Amino acid sequence: VILEWFIVLWISVHHVSARVPVSAAKLKARRQRWNVRASEMSKNTLNPIRAIVDGMKLTPNPEKPMIALSIGDPTVFGNLPTDDSVLQAMKDAIDSHKFNGYAPSVGYLQSREAVANFYSQAGAPLEAKDVILTSGCSQAIELAISALCNPGDNILVPCPGFSLYKTLAVSVGVQVKFYNLLPEKSWEVDLQHLESLIDDRTTCLIVNNPSNPCGSVFTKEHLRNILAVDLRFASRHCIPILADEIYGDMVFPSCEFHSLANLSSDVPILSCGGLAKRWLVPGWRMGWILIHDRNNIFGSEIREALVKLSQRILGACTVVQGALESILNNTQAEFYQSTIGFLKSNSEICFAELSTVPGLNPVMPSGAMYLMVGIEMEHFPEFQNDVDFTERLVTEQSVFCLPATAFEYPNFFRIVVTVPEEMMVEACGRIREFCARHYRPLSQESNDLDQ
Amino acid sequence: VILEWFIVLWISVHHVSARVPVSAAKLKARRQRWNVRASEMSKNTLNPIRAIVDGMKLTPNPEKPMIALSIGDPTVFGNLPTDDSVLQAMKDAIDSHKFNGYAPSVGYLQSREAVANFYSQAGAPLEAKDVILTSGCSQAIELAISALCNPGDNILVPCPGFSLYKTLAVSVGVQVKFYNLLPEKSWEVDLQHLESLIDDRTTCLIVNNPSNPCGSVFTKEHLRNILAVDLRFASRHCIPILADEIYGDMVFPSCEFHSLANLSSDVPILSCGGLAKRWLVPGWRMGWILIHDRNNIFGSEIREALVKLSQRILGACTVVQGALESILNNTQAEFYQSTIGFLKSNSEICFAELSTVPGLNPVMPSGAMYLMVGIEMEHFPEFQNDVDFTERLVTEQSVFCLPATAFEYPNFFRIVVTVPEEMMVEACGRIREFCARHYRPLSQESNDLDQ
Repeated sequence: VILEWFIVLWISVHHVSARVPVSAAKLKARRQRWNVRASEMSKNTLNPIRAIVDGMKLTPNPEKPMIALSIGDPTVFGNLPTDDSVLQAMKDAIDSHKFNGYAPSVGYLQSREAVANFYSQAGAPLEAKDVILTSGCSQAIELAISALCNPGDNILVPCPGFSLYKTLAVSVGVQVKFYNLLPEKSWEVDLQHLESLIDDRTTCLIVNNPSNPCGSVFTKEHLRNILAVDLRFASRHCIPILADEIYGDMVFPSCEFHSLANLSSDVPILSCGGLAKRWLVPGWRMGWILIHDRNNIFGSEIREALVKLSQRILGACTVVQGALESILNNTQAEFYQSTIGFLKSNSEICFAELSTVPGLNPVMPSGAMYLMVGIEMEHFPEFQNDVDFTERLVTEQSVFCLPATAFEYPNFFRIVVTVPEEMMVEACGRIREFCARHYRPLSQESNDLDQ
Repeated sequence: VILEWFIVLWISVHHVSARVPVSAAKLKARRQRWNVRASEMSKNTLNPIRAIVDGMKLTPNPEKPMIALSIGDPTVFGNLPTDDSVLQAMKDAIDSHKFNGYAPSVGYLQSREAVANFYSQAGAPLEAKDVILTSGCSQAIELAISALCNPGDNILVPCPGFSLYKTLAVSVGVQVKFYNLLPEKSWEVDLQHLESLIDDRTTCLIVNNPSNPCGSVFTKEHLRNILAVDLRFASRHCIPILADEIYGDMVFPSCEFHSLANLSSDVPILSCGGLAKRWLVPGWRMGWILIHDRNNIFGSEIREALVKLSQRILGACTVVQGALESILNNTQAEFYQSTIGFLKSNSEICFAELSTVPGLNPVMPSGAMYLMVGIEMEHFPEFQNDVDFTERLVTEQSVFCLPATAFEYPNFFRIVVTVPEEMMVEACGRIREFCARHYRPLSQESNDLDQ
């Protein structure tokens, strides 16, 4: 016992500086003395979704189980598993023992070749040298912006649009200009507005098709019109396009996906994509940049820039790279069709339900995994805005939809259509109940009713 | 046939701009009109190893098979496979179907907890909240530098040292100041020199232990001296330490690895590590930052900065994250011991061989996977420098070692000791032959010989 005490004493003495509690005032003084401050870049790295969601009081109704229609991850409910062949390709890559070492920073040649072959089209041919593998589509977008833009430049970004464009741009001092999408025209680009935003410091136009958060898919004609706007400025200086096509080919059977690059031989395009959505494995962080530059506008300069930037932290996990060829070539058409069939059916259920709810204006999507719903705020005077509206929807009905303020587009909310069907039906019912309770006719209408 | 011709003609007309070859002059004019330029950041992303190696004429002697002692990837020769339990952990993670969706940007809580438990020490306790999972140790270092430094600040970096520190810092406008390591003192830090470099804009001190390229392992006493230098400046403003400990625990049995954080309760330390080296899977891109901040100097500010920055591109592949707990807990001690035993034995072979080569001064390592060799350039008047020397070693003997100019340390070269033993023996024999052929005694000595 004495020995034990001695040991305890000995430890106490030797750890005294760490063990004795220090007063709050003393701690503060110490911090000031050390003066360690976070960088400007970290302070400028803003996540609007986090900022908005963290500011919301999300207390579900204890009597109703929570349904989250907010999560842009198709895997969370288990109803959309990836294909077995995709998992098998991973296990084969592991068993081969060939994919444990470093890959080149732009990816294995063979994996790049596989991506080039998979995405090559008559009007937009690709070789391995045109492919850079990245750690998810996020890094693809980051590399593209970092290669094309300097602090003080600006980029054109869709509104509503995926918030990461702004997050990445602003964190490196690049300004963001939002061009409008038009809900009444199936979220087509307001071309006049787009054109009006271009100036001498515009170094990148981001086109997201199919769209998050809209679920819209542009027609061939509309894509040609976007390219034409861009080309009209060629005489001054032209703007390369970052085509975010991560939802490429995730379109409902009634329409068709056209990659932007296949419609132009003039405009240099960096098309960003990855395995995340179509193969339903977003966590694997397997993305890519496809460099389309048939007229050699980018030349070696932009290609070298992308290669250099890829060397900062290297790219995708080698096991996934090793599995890539097999994933692209051996996944059966039925897998893709079944995913799309489900998304379409769920979208139709949701759209049909919410179309008949007074005060709501859902916009039917054509692809991706989202559906936007307009809120006629004038009919919901209790709520100040979409954030208020969706917050109360949680409190009362335990249904959470992301307020579209998170996409710089107030008075809408986004529904993710990947949830199981019965959950979607239940959620729509609760949204109907919520709206019925809070809907107020406008005074004109109420006068009509009074008569 | 007429129809076929018509189709060909139609296609030609419609693709005329892409099909007709354009003259070089016209192409140049077109590029100028478009004026797409690579960003300053990409131009400032410099990879000294690539710059030097790409500038070398590396034409091996056709009569001797090439031996590359230059590649810092322990997996390339197949003689150092990872443990079967590590591969099994990955396959289990895949089979669980639980790790395909998005993880939080800082990693799964359970995986962070596993890392915290694995690295927690009495003097440097860790919880899950102190761990951020990253896409390889490179991203860990990138996040740490990006969180701590603004453009115009400077960081202190070991010389010789891993080139990525400079690459990452310079690309974001942070200046690099090199402090000397002393080969005659087993590559300990020249503390006086280190102290002389600190100024008001110094925001980070990088300590790499065990060292790439030196293979050195600091004693507990020396690490305490480094901390003391740092602390001496606490009255002005103190400098947080980025401890690059990716080779932690990869030390020969004769000595011991001490993590810097375990020796200090004062200095805030970001310790960067990962699976790459100790588990021999560098391609998997699984890294981490361990936040040691017992006195709350970083406070929430730096923690939040790291979290924010992690949201830019997210971190490590979820399959590897899912396997992490099992990898850390189920890899047997024999695996680590066998790797270290091999590295030590190979280092001893190499050191013993090159110690007796006139003109060379190898420095025996104590860990990691490298061995530095000094060249007495005055005895090799044919060669201007270490780049020249190693280039000719390829031409004549088909042995490639990285000139230490790549680590800002001329007149040395680095040997990677992970190659199979027979290759190491053969390579050392060839280096001996090469040196014997080109060694010239100094005039004083030659006079002696003449007598």
